[in-house]
Amino acid sequence: MVRLVGDNEDGDATRVDAALVEAYLAESRELTLAEIRNIVPRDGRYRSILYDLMLEYPLRNAKALRPALCIATCRALGGPLEAVLRSAGTLELYHNAFLIHDDVEDGSESRRDRPTLHRTHGMPIAVNVGDAMLALALQPLLDNMRLIGMGKALRILQAIARMARESAEGQALELHWIRTNEWDLTDTDYLRMVYKKTSWYTFITPVLLGGIVAGAPAPRLVTLRRFAALLGIAFQIQDDILNLTAEGDGYGKEFAGDLWEGKHTLILMHAVRSATATERRRAVAILRKRRPAAGEEGRPAGPPSLRLLRSLERRGELSAAGRRELEATLAPAEGDADSKTAAEIRFLITLIERCGSIDYARATSERFARRAEAVLRGAPWLGPSVHRQFLSALVDFVVQRGR
Amino acid sequence: MVRLVGDNEDGDATRVDAALVEAYLAESRELTLAEIRNIVPRDGRYRSILYDLMLEYPLRNAKALRPALCIATCRALGGPLEAVLRSAGTLELYHNAFLIHDDVEDGSESRRDRPTLHRTHGMPIAVNVGDAMLALALQPLLDNMRLIGMGKALRILQAIARMARESAEGQALELHWIRTNEWDLTDTDYLRMVYKKTSWYTFITPVLLGGIVAGAPAPRLVTLRRFAALLGIAFQIQDDILNLTAEGDGYGKEFAGDLWEGKHTLILMHAVRSATATERRRAVAILRKRRPAAGEEGRPAGPPSLRLLRSLERRGELSAAGRRELEATLAPAEGDADSKTAAEIRFLITLIERCGSIDYARATSERFARRAEAVLRGAPWLGPSVHRQFLSALVDFVVQRGR
Repeated sequence: MVRLVGDNEDGDATRVDAALVEAYLAESRELTLAEIRNIVPRDGRYRSILYDLMLEYPLRNAKALRPALCIATCRALGGPLEAVLRSAGTLELYHNAFLIHDDVEDGSESRRDRPTLHRTHGMPIAVNVGDAMLALALQPLLDNMRLIGMGKALRILQAIARMARESAEGQALELHWIRTNEWDLTDTDYLRMVYKKTSWYTFITPVLLGGIVAGAPAPRLVTLRRFAALLGIAFQIQDDILNLTAEGDGYGKEFAGDLWEGKHTLILMHAVRSATATERRRAVAILRKRRPAAGEEGRPAGPPSLRLLRSLERRGELSAAGRRELEATLAPAEGDADSKTAAEIRFLITLIERCGSIDYARATSERFARRAEAVLRGAPWLGPSVHRQFLSALVDFVVQRGR
Repeated sequence: MVRLVGDNEDGDATRVDAALVEAYLAESRELTLAEIRNIVPRDGRYRSILYDLMLEYPLRNAKALRPALCIATCRALGGPLEAVLRSAGTLELYHNAFLIHDDVEDGSESRRDRPTLHRTHGMPIAVNVGDAMLALALQPLLDNMRLIGMGKALRILQAIARMARESAEGQALELHWIRTNEWDLTDTDYLRMVYKKTSWYTFITPVLLGGIVAGAPAPRLVTLRRFAALLGIAFQIQDDILNLTAEGDGYGKEFAGDLWEGKHTLILMHAVRSATATERRRAVAILRKRRPAAGEEGRPAGPPSLRLLRSLERRGELSAAGRRELEATLAPAEGDADSKTAAEIRFLITLIERCGSIDYARATSERFARRAEAVLRGAPWLGPSVHRQFLSALVDFVVQRGR
């Protein structure tokens, strides 16, 4: 459930748009799941030990944003639904394969409110299922030739190869910053990383695939790509914001998990940059420490209580001063000297608050969303349809979700 | 260095063949590395944090068996070297990507006598480099179109998709057996698993790619595939044998590592099957236990001493009885109740010896090698050339390496 605050003048219009986005996502998701069921083999012998496991994550409560973008772009350009479903399904397969690997890398406990695959089946099986999904995605892209012709199918394969390269580079950049604890970075560095890591993978490739299937000429693909790049950046910044502001149900990720992992969000980069020299030194020293392992002291007692306090504060049931006082009474939650403590995460949150970094991120996200909107407005060849409406409404949806 | 014992009558011929195989492998490896250097981008910004890491494993002391098979098949059929190099390089890229992921899965410490990538760069970076290599392999296969034409390039992509599926199924089978501690299995089960896991990946796909590039008609591809399937099985069984018999330098893997991991080798399956009911119960109970983590008691003290004793015995410097007596004096090496101990691994080794399971495996490997040889002899269209000689000599090389 998306809760829109309707704090702009046409709150009703916003609500209608959000309902449209939700309905479009839900319908695309159903179509995509049916397609994935076709793509994944259902042979007797390997079904229960391999193929059923491939369907686990897609069948959980996923938004299926990528296939929806792909379908909407194709249809907004007048392309037929049947021609694009194979590509949409493949994108969702890729995405879920990467989620499985991400969960292994991060040692995550849950995904979409249920235990991660490596927790239920062990790490080796989870890595193999992820590899198998990446590999299996090749076949439907080859079968595409019969469906949409050789030329388009090849351009889609090229787009997938490009996506893979861009994502790997973006990911390499982020992992390198984490490993070397690099914080002497500008917004430009952040934008480059997010453009590669998030925009290419979640937005650019889906709209390119939709555009290619619909037979859009090159200049239109350039416009679509620009729209998607901007929206992807707005999306990632909003994702970073949610990690520090989202409450309760529906979020599904761990509050302040990005801080525990020392991820390079626009928010944290802004705070570190805006802090005094002393604060910056302390923040960087904290971020150098590793995340405590699950079950280690410090982490389990930390975030949940902190989260409750902040939720009480946001609901107006606790003052900022009262919250700070309560926080101070929380057990200091000692970890070893090499791992972050709850008190240290609280220091980072306080620093972020004092530097106004969340507001800064909100303004930046909003700015990119408006630029994306402007690009779409300048594309009259994307005639009026529910599909174009979805793309347009998605802009507000992306920056307002979870508020 | 391959040490051939020359225990058959024409020892000299065997030595010449082994030298041929080594020289052919070495030359193919140089050509393949040059090609991989072309495939992997060398951009400034991402070079040190991503692309150089992709080259790490290939540049280590690898045999590069897969590209050699691919090159030899193409050239034995009269195909040109330049046309097949791209496919050969891609195969080696895939292989090394899977090695990186395997090392993460198994928590391996070293690969080709140097620390594993996840030890030097951390697990997240290692997983990303592996994913990036898998993804990057798509581009050269698409570029292949310009090199060898659309039809062949597409058939190669199909072969890669099939390989991916077969390997994933074989791997799923093995991981399922390990997870459920399934030992009520026949040789047919083993052969199916190995055909999928090893033959498709290491032998069938390389010769198919070579054959496709050379323009071999379908019936010849069927013969080549049959040759490769049989040779792959002989190769895997020999690999299992080496894990329990190889000494010192040049092997590069951990002695009895398969037993610690509870892997389903033909040897162990034969021993479990041939044991008395009591022994079988004990063996299965041992195999149910997990491998102790590195540094845990039991493992570090175990295998090296055991290995030394067996080496002494083989070199005739220790009798079997003396070795058993010495083994009994080794500290019992306690782990927790859930993890295997050195004493338990010794029990399995003794069981394997008593059941003659290594001899059984040797005979089986030999039988498959001879069948592979017969298939090759029945292929007169593979005219005489150094390339055909390599394929032919490879059969003995596979079953005699490490002896």
